[in-house]
Amino acid sequence: MLERLEEIGKLFDYYSNLLNSKHKDVLELYYFQDMSLSEIAEILNVTRQGVFDLLKRAENNLQFYEKNLGLIDKNKKIIIELESIRDRLINDTDGKEILISDIGKIIESM
Amino acid sequence: MLERLEEIGKLFDYYSNLLNSKHKDVLELYYFQDMSLSEIAEILNVTRQGVFDLLKRAENNLQFYEKNLGLIDKNKKIIIELESIRDRLINDTDGKEILISDIGKIIESM
Repeated sequence: MLERLEEIGKLFDYYSNLLNSKHKDVLELYYFQDMSLSEIAEILNVTRQGVFDLLKRAENNLQFYEKNLGLIDKNKKIIIELESIRDRLINDTDGKEILISDIGKIIESM
Repeated sequence: MLERLEEIGKLFDYYSNLLNSKHKDVLELYYFQDMSLSEIAEILNVTRQGVFDLLKRAENNLQFYEKNLGLIDKNKKIIIELESIRDRLINDTDGKEILISDIGKIIESM
């Protein structure tokens, strides 16, 4: 569950702006406010099954966005490359030509 | 028109993976293969008005994605910052502490 929460949290950070308000609400209540399906059903005035369906659809949408845009994955790669450049700058392990070239590669990949 | 083409091309690069195949097709035929609405209507077997509506909806979707995710804008800012770091590294205009700190800021912003 904790892993699932982390995964949804990350997807939500990146893509929640693309969700409609009902999908956003149901994810927030379930994952971030730790409410049960029945509690959410009462708040949103839908059935428990309705909440379940909304939740599934909201999660599917988030996963669709990441599958097709891959922002989490792309950002992670760029962060790793930038951290590597920063570390090599800190430790003087590479000449500046290599660092310049590596920065150029990141720019080109964007 | 050239400006419009450039704008749609950029949006298409970033977000076309989120479009359904009909929206993708109509944008490709109209903007990148330079076909008229009537020609596209014949190919897709819909009315000229139908093509126009598809085109509008496809463009609106692209704009919705940029408005809500802002990837083009975000990427542009990061590229400008990386180019600045690269230039300062090339020209030795800043001490490495400043560059290290600026790389850290980009990482945090991602």
